[in-house]
Amino acid sequence: MQSLQQKASEWSGVSIADAFAIDEANLFHKLGLQTLVNLSTNFYNRVYDDDQEWFRSIFANSDKQNAIQNQIEFLVQRMGGPTLYSQRRGHPALIARHRPFPLTHEAANRWLHHMGQALDSTSAIDDDSKIKLINFFRHTAYFLVAGVEHKDQNFHVPCKDAALKQHPCKNF
Amino acid sequence: MQSLQQKASEWSGVSIADAFAIDEANLFHKLGLQTLVNLSTNFYNRVYDDDQEWFRSIFANSDKQNAIQNQIEFLVQRMGGPTLYSQRRGHPALIARHRPFPLTHEAANRWLHHMGQALDSTSAIDDDSKIKLINFFRHTAYFLVAGVEHKDQNFHVPCKDAALKQHPCKNF
Repeated sequence: MQSLQQKASEWSGVSIADAFAIDEANLFHKLGLQTLVNLSTNFYNRVYDDDQEWFRSIFANSDKQNAIQNQIEFLVQRMGGPTLYSQRRGHPALIARHRPFPLTHEAANRWLHHMGQALDSTSAIDDDSKIKLINFFRHTAYFLVAGVEHKDQNFHVPCKDAALKQHPCKNF
Repeated sequence: MQSLQQKASEWSGVSIADAFAIDEANLFHKLGLQTLVNLSTNFYNRVYDDDQEWFRSIFANSDKQNAIQNQIEFLVQRMGGPTLYSQRRGHPALIARHRPFPLTHEAANRWLHHMGQALDSTSAIDDDSKIKLINFFRHTAYFLVAGVEHKDQNFHVPCKDAALKQHPCKNF
């Protein structure tokens, strides 16, 4: 079976080396907290105002300010700053925490569309950092899609029911 | 619903502040790579030699050297060193990557028993670091147990089958 990271690279077109080029420099120190706050606010403003209802509805049960705070703290931590996310919520556990959401390829693309626009319209993000962030987000979005698909594959029903349910089966 | 981190704290008896006190200092710089290599090797030697077959069997399909490498790279990265894990495997995604394993409370306890012994018998780990690592591992082990239980809750079968299968149900 292909690994999560292999699927993410294949679907996103971003190698794992390019996805994690964010770690070549400390982007938190380079960009600063306020820029990451601006980026996440800009991004979620676009998401919650999306004119495509199918995408907006994915976030219908999530509080916008909470979503912004989660993303800011995750980015601060992952880009080399203080571990704000873990101090409040523990491990990022990205795939598990995205389980409630229908993460299709289309949803990943739409998410990335808004993030691309947010990156372009947030001042103080230099071109090199922007490329690194885009590659990170692109790989990560498809890593999550792969994680959700994997979840479904991972559930086993008794073999006598498998044909009916189109699930992988296991003899308990 | 209780959050993953709340369940982890309740079951482990370790608050989130104590679990992530690992971040108060840079434990990678304090302990060094060789100590983390020794710790993971010591730990998995105990796991793969466990006299309790039920626990040893959890690792039966995992290559020991690979398990050691994964844990070393994860610890180096999480304790403040270079992001070796992400460079090779992407996001840690701890819960998703532990999905194939039957993570019961008993398994978490047995895992922690071996880790406690490994920490006690690995030289060059000072008492303060040991306490921080034990709290981190204890919280994390139960965070994963909570994540696995949550996974099961998250799967829905059609309501007509729910009573039979003891799963939450959903009318499709």
